[in-house]
Amino acid sequence: METMRGIYFDGEKAVYREDLPKPVPGPTQSLVRIHLAGVCNTDKEILKGYRPAFRGVMGHEFVGHVVESSDPDWVGKRVVGELNAGCGHCVYCRTGREKHCDDRRVLGMERKDGCFAEYMTIETHLLHAVPDTLPDERAVFTEPFAAALEIPEQVHIKPSLEAAVIGDGRLSYMVAQVLALCGCGVTVFGHHAEKLKAFAPFAKTALAPAGTFELVVECSGAPGGLADAMALVRHKGTVVLKSTYAGQTQVDMSAFAVHEVTLVGSRCGPFEAALRLLSRGLVDLEPIELHDLKEFSAAFTSPAFKSGFDLR
Amino acid sequence: METMRGIYFDGEKAVYREDLPKPVPGPTQSLVRIHLAGVCNTDKEILKGYRPAFRGVMGHEFVGHVVESSDPDWVGKRVVGELNAGCGHCVYCRTGREKHCDDRRVLGMERKDGCFAEYMTIETHLLHAVPDTLPDERAVFTEPFAAALEIPEQVHIKPSLEAAVIGDGRLSYMVAQVLALCGCGVTVFGHHAEKLKAFAPFAKTALAPAGTFELVVECSGAPGGLADAMALVRHKGTVVLKSTYAGQTQVDMSAFAVHEVTLVGSRCGPFEAALRLLSRGLVDLEPIELHDLKEFSAAFTSPAFKSGFDLR
Repeated sequence: METMRGIYFDGEKAVYREDLPKPVPGPTQSLVRIHLAGVCNTDKEILKGYRPAFRGVMGHEFVGHVVESSDPDWVGKRVVGELNAGCGHCVYCRTGREKHCDDRRVLGMERKDGCFAEYMTIETHLLHAVPDTLPDERAVFTEPFAAALEIPEQVHIKPSLEAAVIGDGRLSYMVAQVLALCGCGVTVFGHHAEKLKAFAPFAKTALAPAGTFELVVECSGAPGGLADAMALVRHKGTVVLKSTYAGQTQVDMSAFAVHEVTLVGSRCGPFEAALRLLSRGLVDLEPIELHDLKEFSAAFTSPAFKSGFDLR
Repeated sequence: METMRGIYFDGEKAVYREDLPKPVPGPTQSLVRIHLAGVCNTDKEILKGYRPAFRGVMGHEFVGHVVESSDPDWVGKRVVGELNAGCGHCVYCRTGREKHCDDRRVLGMERKDGCFAEYMTIETHLLHAVPDTLPDERAVFTEPFAAALEIPEQVHIKPSLEAAVIGDGRLSYMVAQVLALCGCGVTVFGHHAEKLKAFAPFAKTALAPAGTFELVVECSGAPGGLADAMALVRHKGTVVLKSTYAGQTQVDMSAFAVHEVTLVGSRCGPFEAALRLLSRGLVDLEPIELHDLKEFSAAFTSPAFKSGFDLR
């Protein structure tokens, strides 16, 4: 049996292993040689117990190239890939909502090995070709940037809109840019004056909530963000909820009814659109800080804009 | 009486005059010293009889600075301005649709002198301040670029959308870029291989209609464009009609019903959003070819991407 190096979650902690079996693609799958993999906040949540049933190779943000495939046209191509593989026959899979399949397998999260390893299998229909003009170091942002693009995918973003983004982290940074590319006026609310400076080319910034906005996107990653969102959103406006956090949250739900506010939950987004915008260089991104797999602790705890693994 | 230079439409033709009265702003108006003015296709249509009742100074695309104003805060500011001044009390004016007021006055088109002159009055609420970073030569594109932004203002443009644009002229050039900034895949269909080359940075191009698209924008300026649009649009898709042309057009209207196609007519758009995107340098524009007012015939017949007048 061929082996490979990777980061394995054993149910309690991440472990660096060199004895992982090199995976064999199934009849509808491709085998990808990973180039770069990005660490997502979800990976850190897994280490805290967010996915208690999961065992396997961690990671879901990657760029690599196809070495074997159910479709020979893919072999040799540089690719990124979507996380969620549906069952293929439920109501969600049959109506264009595969990523909502209740029986889906999810890279590095749910009954499917992920990309913190030299090789990974993936359903071939989840692959997207990376244009030659887009280097690995930027292509690895496709998945998180697509998540930001899910907002205009779900909500009609009028260019005349004044929008607020709550949070000054990486997701906010991408969300604010997506809204600005749509033409919107964007104001970002955060707690870190230093981080907020990076938003200046495309948004106004503030340390305390002020004003009212037709659209508010909650990206703070903290339960308190929703109350801030409700304070900022105009009556008949829309709150997009991007943050996910464990457990129950105390919420004044009647404010939604009284002010006729629409709440839109938002998760994964369109990869092709992300590749188009990233390829044109229209998105500002700070460089990814790359580590060897052995330094996985450093990658998981890095304060960098984005950290990840170099497997080339 | 103070006089000024300008291009006057006398009901039959354009005339260069140096004896036009310098206008005096009313109690809700501002007086603008024009810097640059752009020639629009509509100006050429006026010369062909598109607005038989109009007499006055032509032109509606401009950048200038405010010399007098009903609101002193505006004085000295560099500005662009919207075309349509509504009556202020009809159903359209009261419901945020001033530009659809049936009794509206329109710069250089309808009971209101336009901007092909040294000075022009305008309702103060129609002014928009131009950021210092945006030079006159680009600010003068605000009005036509806003017209392109009216598409995402009206229609929910999903980033995953594949869109077609019919026409390879100036309006198509801006519409294609707006759709590309939204993340869409864009294909432009035109008749001029040379013009189509300019679209390469942000769109695929073709000389003959092919394929099908969720969204088709008709910018050809010719009646035949609508039949092309209907051949390209997918069932249950959307056709946006930007072209305007005189007279009746033969149309297979049942195709709209049978294929459940939505037709969206589209005209003027959001100025602030246009200024935001132009200021960030996210829009490719070929330089405006500038003329003296005396050379108005050359400006009206120029094959340049954009021609206009330098009044500085």
